[in-house]
Order: sequence, then C-alpha cells, then structure tokens
Amino acid sequence: MLSKSKIKYIRSLAMKKFRNETGCFLAEGNKLVKDILPYFECELLIAKPAWIAGQGDLRAGELIAADNHDIEKASLLKTPQDVIAVFKQPDYQLDKEELKHGLSLVSDGVQDPGNMGTIVRLADWFGIRNVICSPDSVDIFNPKTVQATMGAIARVRVVYAELPALLSDLNDVPIYGAFLEGNSIYEEKLSANGLIVMGNEGKGIRRRVAQHITRKLYIPNYPPGTETTESLNVAVATAIICNEFRRQSQLRN
Amino acid sequence: MLSKSKIKYIRSLAMKKFRNETGCFLAEGNKLVKDILPYFECELLIAKPAWIAGQGDLRAGELIAADNHDIEKASLLKTPQDVIAVFKQPDYQLDKEELKHGLSLVSDGVQDPGNMGTIVRLADWFGIRNVICSPDSVDIFNPKTVQATMGAIARVRVVYAELPALLSDLNDVPIYGAFLEGNSIYEEKLSANGLIVMGNEGKGIRRRVAQHITRKLYIPNYPPGTETTESLNVAVATAIICNEFRRQSQLRN
Repeated sequence: MLSKSKIKYIRSLAMKKFRNETGCFLAEGNKLVKDILPYFECELLIAKPAWIAGQGDLRAGELIAADNHDIEKASLLKTPQDVIAVFKQPDYQLDKEELKHGLSLVSDGVQDPGNMGTIVRLADWFGIRNVICSPDSVDIFNPKTVQATMGAIARVRVVYAELPALLSDLNDVPIYGAFLEGNSIYEEKLSANGLIVMGNEGKGIRRRVAQHITRKLYIPNYPPGTETTESLNVAVATAIICNEFRRQSQLRN
Repeated sequence: MLSKSKIKYIRSLAMKKFRNETGCFLAEGNKLVKDILPYFECELLIAKPAWIAGQGDLRAGELIAADNHDIEKASLLKTPQDVIAVFKQPDYQLDKEELKHGLSLVSDGVQDPGNMGTIVRLADWFGIRNVICSPDSVDIFNPKTVQATMGAIARVRVVYAELPALLSDLNDVPIYGAFLEGNSIYEEKLSANGLIVMGNEGKGIRRRVAQHITRKLYIPNYPPGTETTESLNVAVATAIICNEFRRQSQLRN
C-alpha cells in the first residue's frame, strides 16, 4: 500500500523545483529502471510484487510492493508500467582536461525533452561521454527527458554550465557548430576531439556562444542547391554530425 | 463567426475515419499553411482578419475570418495559431519506374506521428521524392504528422501499399534495410537508386518484409564493439542512413 504522501512526493518530481529541492529524479518502466539501477543510488522503488520477485538483489533505500491501482496513481506515464523508481541525481563535475581530449556535445538552449533525450542517446551510441548544457536548456532530470534517453542517462555525463565562459576557457580545442553558411561536413576534416554546439529548436545558436565557434559546419542537402525544408530537427542534425565525426575517425584508424 | 458545425467538422479531422470519409486533412499555423498552400487544394481557410489582410490572393474554397475565441475552439494545437486550413488529400499513384531509378524510403509500420513527420522532412532534405508506407504505418494526414513534416508534406509523395507484393515486384532494385547484423554503412557501396526500409519503433522490420531485403545495413557505434544503447530511434537512424547515401553520391559526382 502506497501512502498518499509517497504518491504526492513521486508526482512532485515532475517539477524542477522539487527535483532541485530533493536532489532526486524519477524513472519508470522495467527496462529503463533495470538499465540505470547499477549506476545511480536508488532512494525509493515501487513495483508490483511479481516484478520484485523476478529480480535478484535489489539495492534500494526503500522498497514498496504496490498494486496496479497504486502505481497508476503515482505514475506520470500515460501507460503506467510495473515499476517506478526515485534516484539520487549524480553530482558530476566538469573535467576540462577530459573535454580537451575527447569529443563532447554542447546544448545551447535545447528545450524539448524528447530532443534532449535523443541527443543523450546519440552521445551514448557514438561514445561521447560528456554533454554540456547551457543553464536554460531543458533539465536532463525532467521525467520525459529521462524516459527519452532510454537508459543512456546512466552512461553519459550531462552537466550544466555558462557556455561563453566555458568555451572561452577551452580556446585551444576545436569548437564546432552547425550553421546554414558553414563548411560541408563531408569536406571538413573533423577532429577526434572538440566540442560540437547544437542550438535551440527555434532560435539556433546564440551570438554570444557562436562567437566562440571556430569551425562552422553545414549538413549538405541533396541535390546540392535545391529548394528544401530550410532546417533539420536538432536531434536529427546531431545524429548526422556525430555520425560523420565518427566515420572519419574510424577511417583514420 | 465560425459555426458550431464548422468547428465540429474541423475537429473531426483529428480522426482517420473522418479524414477518409471527407478526403481532407488539416494544417495549422502561418508558416505551415503558407508553405503548403501552393501545392494542395484548400477547401476551407479560417484565419484572423489581420492574417488574411497580410496575404495576397488566397486560393481557398471558403475563407472565414475568425477571432481568437473561434480559432481556439476549432484548433487541435495546445497553442492555437492565426490560421487553420482544410486541404484536399492528394491522390498519388505509385510510379514503379520512378521507384526503380530514384532513391525511396519505405516505412514498415512506423507508428509515431513525430517520427513519420521527421522522416518526411528528411526525405525532402535529401531529395527523396517517394515514401512508401505499409498500410499499418501512421497516417501521413494525422494532424500531428502533418505538423511534424514542417511543410515537407508538400514536396514528398507519401503512398500506402502492401509491402511484400511491392518489394517482390521491384526485385531488380537494391532493397536496403537497417539491422543489427548488417554491413557497416561506411563500408557498403550505397547506390544512387533503391529502397531503404525502416521498421516499426518496437518491432523493427517484419519477417515477410525482411525477406525481400537484399542489402542489410548497420550503423556502427563508436568505439566499435563497445556496450551502448542497443538501438537508435527510427527517425535518427533514417537521418544517418540517408545522409550516408547522399554523401557517397556526392563523392561519386
């Protein structure tokens, strides 16, 4: 039996204010929860008895068996699943040395939880360990973002930072960004390290961030020069750019 | 002033049943409606007087000036815009000769309107004129799909067809599909013509469709062979694959 106060607490984690106050975040569903359980400290785990019985040793501060009815009341999903978990938010520090030597993604105001989740999932796929977000980017611990990462949130470090100051500090690292007037990603030699800046869905990359970008990139449409949709969705553009970086890296190895 | 029956009619177009009965579809918002007006027959256009005044000659069967209140009642969007338009659905026929000579996309049961809209937008970007969908794929005229195409629906022909029969007919054309056990897209020579089959979000490509696929493709993760998210979102995978087809085409030209 799930108490009213527990239900209220879980549902409050939909709001950034309460996530910040508690330092916690929410994940729902068998696959997601199992994927991230080994990586984050689980404070509270609510699940159907059959789900609990099917697991081995469950490391959770508090473990509550609940029925369908309770889970439906606590869940933020349209289709509630067998398990809801509350995790402690990890406290990552920016490692500038790592940023200098690896490839990282930067979000300058990406707003849509689905896009952010997809970007983190892409980072995981392409071996990109760090995603740095401007403070006004969507919160990675927004439950919709967490769900959209499909578990990649456990393997990718997402950190929030003031971008102009950070990029200014990293001025010996190639800083890439996607622009309509950049160089073709097919023709530009893409390095194995550096930062790739992706802009807000509507407004793109802000001027005070853009001025730190040393290599402007463009995704060619086809056939070149024809009329087309004037832009690609930010997650799709990130996918194409990351893929081309890694294709060129593999070619060189 | 918008009559109750007009509001009811517009809102009914959220449902496939009524779209099929009327042969119509809905588009909302200044940019989308203006982008597609030249391409489709507009049956009904409802807009704020200031919006109407700002346009040149408007070709619409019926033009109704409406206030905020009326538009809010008719709109399917969370944030209603200045204009709502009802268009006649185009009646495209499959042109098998065109399919043999160009590059086309195939949806084997893609379900999410956002994914389908993104795929059509990608097709437009990469000069892919035809998208063929299995009958159980999401309806391209679903208002959410129409919005997600960002106007690309005007330039890309989306046709529904039984895939096994069609693919069997096109057996002299390369038929590609993304699989976990395929050949790397970086190493496979990707042709300028052919079909690229993308599968359902959860189930992938069905066996009776897969058996017609002559070239299995794989998007390499990085570094190769490491543990990662086990799959990419279908729209993201489509983006990476289409980009690689077109990159190789440009390289050959």
